[in-house]
Amino acid sequence: MAAERMVVIGGDATGMSAASQARRLRKPEDLEVVAFERGPFSSYSACGIPYWVGGDVKERDALIARSPEEHRSRGIDLRMRTEAVELDLAGARVRVREEAGTERWEGYDHLVLATGAVPTRPPLPGIDAEGVHGVQTLDDGRQLLDALEHRIERGGGSGGEGARRAVVVGAGYIGVEMAEAFVQRGYEVTVLEKAEQPMSTLDPDMGRLVHEAMCSLGIETVLEAAVTEILTDEDGRARGVATEDTEYPADVVVLGLGVRPATELARAAELPLGTSGGLLTDLAMRVRGQENVWAGGDCVEVLNLVSGRAQHVPLGTHANKHGQVIGQNVGGGYATFPGVVGTAVSKVCDLEIARTGLLEAQASAVGLQYESVVIESTTRAGYYPGTRPIHVKMIAERRSGRLLGVQIVGRENAGKRVDIAAVALHAGMTVEQMTSLDLGYAPPFSPVWDPVLVAARKAAAAVRAG
Amino acid sequence: MAAERMVVIGGDATGMSAASQARRLRKPEDLEVVAFERGPFSSYSACGIPYWVGGDVKERDALIARSPEEHRSRGIDLRMRTEAVELDLAGARVRVREEAGTERWEGYDHLVLATGAVPTRPPLPGIDAEGVHGVQTLDDGRQLLDALEHRIERGGGSGGEGARRAVVVGAGYIGVEMAEAFVQRGYEVTVLEKAEQPMSTLDPDMGRLVHEAMCSLGIETVLEAAVTEILTDEDGRARGVATEDTEYPADVVVLGLGVRPATELARAAELPLGTSGGLLTDLAMRVRGQENVWAGGDCVEVLNLVSGRAQHVPLGTHANKHGQVIGQNVGGGYATFPGVVGTAVSKVCDLEIARTGLLEAQASAVGLQYESVVIESTTRAGYYPGTRPIHVKMIAERRSGRLLGVQIVGRENAGKRVDIAAVALHAGMTVEQMTSLDLGYAPPFSPVWDPVLVAARKAAAAVRAG
Repeated sequence: MAAERMVVIGGDATGMSAASQARRLRKPEDLEVVAFERGPFSSYSACGIPYWVGGDVKERDALIARSPEEHRSRGIDLRMRTEAVELDLAGARVRVREEAGTERWEGYDHLVLATGAVPTRPPLPGIDAEGVHGVQTLDDGRQLLDALEHRIERGGGSGGEGARRAVVVGAGYIGVEMAEAFVQRGYEVTVLEKAEQPMSTLDPDMGRLVHEAMCSLGIETVLEAAVTEILTDEDGRARGVATEDTEYPADVVVLGLGVRPATELARAAELPLGTSGGLLTDLAMRVRGQENVWAGGDCVEVLNLVSGRAQHVPLGTHANKHGQVIGQNVGGGYATFPGVVGTAVSKVCDLEIARTGLLEAQASAVGLQYESVVIESTTRAGYYPGTRPIHVKMIAERRSGRLLGVQIVGRENAGKRVDIAAVALHAGMTVEQMTSLDLGYAPPFSPVWDPVLVAARKAAAAVRAG
Repeated sequence: MAAERMVVIGGDATGMSAASQARRLRKPEDLEVVAFERGPFSSYSACGIPYWVGGDVKERDALIARSPEEHRSRGIDLRMRTEAVELDLAGARVRVREEAGTERWEGYDHLVLATGAVPTRPPLPGIDAEGVHGVQTLDDGRQLLDALEHRIERGGGSGGEGARRAVVVGAGYIGVEMAEAFVQRGYEVTVLEKAEQPMSTLDPDMGRLVHEAMCSLGIETVLEAAVTEILTDEDGRARGVATEDTEYPADVVVLGLGVRPATELARAAELPLGTSGGLLTDLAMRVRGQENVWAGGDCVEVLNLVSGRAQHVPLGTHANKHGQVIGQNVGGGYATFPGVVGTAVSKVCDLEIARTGLLEAQASAVGLQYESVVIESTTRAGYYPGTRPIHVKMIAERRSGRLLGVQIVGRENAGKRVDIAAVALHAGMTVEQMTSLDLGYAPPFSPVWDPVLVAARKAAAAVRAG
C-alpha cells in the first residue's frame, strides 16, 4: 500500500492531466493514483466534436487523446462508468457508484475535482424529444451522426423533399461551429439566437460583422429569436423549432446554449462557489479553504487578469493547464495558474472570430473608462495572393493607454493574431508600447504594418486625443 | 515660403513615411517637405520582388504603395532621379544632382537620411556579366523577368535542352525566397551557400531542418560552397557558377548575399556609424550628436533589446516604423523607436521559417548562459485536417529563466507563431510565465497546448534542472 492516495473525480482533460503529472513525479509506493469517470471515455476532445460531425474528422477515436487502457498501463487506476455521488470532506472520502449500482467509500489524501460542465437545457416543451442533440460528449456526437445517416437513408428532407434542414439554437462558439458542420454536410442551416447579435463574446459592432458574414455564407441567422418550443411529429421526434414569431422546420435540432459548472457534489459538500456556480480556488488550484482538495477545468472559476474578477471560462486549454498545475503540486513540485485574459478563437467556414481581454461592456462593468477603435486591413501584403480581409477592434484604458482587449473578425489567417494581444495583456502593455512591437513581417505573412500594429497606432492616437 | 524646410534623402519606406507623417501634422506655410529619390520609383515593396518574379504578383505596380504623383498630390515636393551627393552639415544644406547632371545646393531645417542599403556583390570574376541578377530594385525585378522570358523564347535550357536552371548564390532570406520563385517558374534550382547551413539567422540544428526540407522540395542546396567565379559564354553572358569543387550550369544567376547600409554620404560627413556601417541614432531616430538630422530604415543600426547591442536589421517593417517616428517628431509630436527583438519570418514553398530574439551563439557572444530546448508538434489539433508539423526551439537564460529567443521551422501556419515570443521578449517574460499564457485555442487553430506553450514548458523544466 502506497504512503498516500490521490483520488481524481472526472477522467477528462483536467483529471487525467493531474493524474498523469502526479504519477510521473511520484513513485507508486509513495502515491497511489485512482481516477473515477462516470462515462465510457477518458481524455477526449469535446472541442473536436463539431469537426467529427462535419466530417473533417473521420473517426471518433481520433478525438481520444488517451484511452482508459493507456492510462492504466501508465500506472493510473482509472475506473470507468463509476460516478462520485458524495463527498465527505471531514472523513477524507468519496462515495462512488459503479455501473452495476454498487456503492463504496474511497478514502483520499489528495482529492481532485474535475467534474466539468453540463450543457444548458432550457425547460422548453419538446426539449427532450428524439432529434434534439447536445454536443458535449462523444455519445452526443455519435447520436448526431447516426441521426444524420438515418435521415440520409430515409431520403432526407423535411417532409421527404428538398434539402435537409438543421436548426441550431444558440449562436455562440458551439453554435457557429455546428452551423459550419451542417453546411459541410450539405444542410440548409438556420441558427436561432435570442440576443441581438451572434457571438455575445464580441461587442455588438464586431458581432454585426459576424452576422453579415454568416448570412453571406448561406447560414440563416435569426437574431432576437425567442425559442418557445421544440415541435415534434406524431412519433415524438423533433420536426422543428418554434419561436414567438415563426416555426422553423428541421430534420435535426442542435442545442448550443453554453454550459454551466458541474458542481452539485461540491455544493452539497459546502465548498466555496462563485457567482456562476464554479468552484473557487487559490493560485495553486487548491479549493479555497481546503488543504488537500484541488479543482480545475470546466467546474471552476478563474481569475480574469484584466478585469480582476473571477469568471467561468470552460475551455480545454485551461483545463489542461489546470491539470498540469494540480499534478505538479500533488507531485511535490510547484506550479500556479495565474489566471486568464479571456482569449478565444473560433471559425465558421472560412470566417475567423477571435477575442481576448474585455469587451466594452465588461470594461464598463468593472469601472474602467476606455477608448476603442476598429481598423480594417488584410492578412497578408495587399498584393500577395490569398490576402484576406481582417477587422481588428482594440480597446485601451483612457489616460493610461493600457490595452484592455482585442476582437478580430476576418478570414483565413486572421484569428490567431489574437495571441499577440493576449501576450500583451499578460504583460500589461500599453497600446503605445504595442506600436513598436517587432512582429514577423514578410509579404506572405503580413502587410508591412501588421493589422494589430495598425490598430495599436489608432488606439494610441485615440488615447492621446481622449 | 514656409517657416521651415524638411529635406528627405531617399523616396522609399522610411523617407516617404517620414515625409507623409510630417506633412499631415504641419501646415504647408509652416513646413515645406522636399524629398529626393535617385531612382525612378517611390515607396515600393522590395520584399515583394521575389513574389513578382515567381509569378504570385502579376504586375510591377502592385508593389508600389504610392507613386510620385500621389505623393506630390499630397503636398510633398518629391523629385525623382535626383541624387544627393554631399552633405554640408555646418551649412545645413545638401548638394543634389539631377538626371541631366545639374547640381545644386538645397538648404534644410530638418534632414532625413533614408538612403537604404546596397546589395553585397563579392569581387568575383564575371560578377558583372549579363545574366547575373540582384533582387533589390524594381528594375532588378524587371530585368530578371525579361531574362526569364528571353530564355523561354530561346527555347530554354542550358545548352538549349532539358529544364531551365537557376543558381541562387546565398541561402539567406532573399536566397530562399528566390529559390521558391524559380521553383514556381518550373526551373531546376541550385542554391549555393558558403556556410555549413542555410539560413544563418537560425542555429545549426534548426538550419539543418531547413536544409532537409529544401532538399525534399527539390531545391538542390549545396553547403560550404565557396563560389570562385561566374562562368560566362562567348557573348559574355553568365552560363554558370563555379565553386572550388564543381561547376553549376545556369540559365540565370541570382545573388542573394545580403545588404550593407548605404552610408557613404553620412561617412563623408563624419556622422557616427556603428560596426556594420549603419548610422547610429537616438531613440527618437535623431542621428547621435545632431540636433536636426534624422535617419532610419536600412541605413541605420538599431538596438537589439535582448542583446543590448546595436545591429543592422534591414527590414521594411522597421523602415516604416522609423519613418513614422521621424515624421511624428519633425511634425511636432513625440515618438520613439525603442529597438527590435530580432523577429523575422520567411517561407520557401510551404516551408515556414521564423526567428526572434537571440541564437545560441548570439547569447554566448554577449555573455549570457542559457538552456535551450527543441520540441516537435503540429500547427492544428492532431486530428484536424491540414495539421502540419512544427518545430519550436526555445532559448532561456540560465537561472532567471528569461526568454532569450525562439526559432520555428514548420509548414503552413507555423511561422507567425513567432509573434507570441516576440511580444514576450518585449515584455521581458520568463519561460515559466509563458507556460500560463492564455493563447487562442480551437482545433482548427492549435493543439490544446499550443506548440509555443509546449516549448515553454520544456524550457521551464530545463531552467529548473539547470
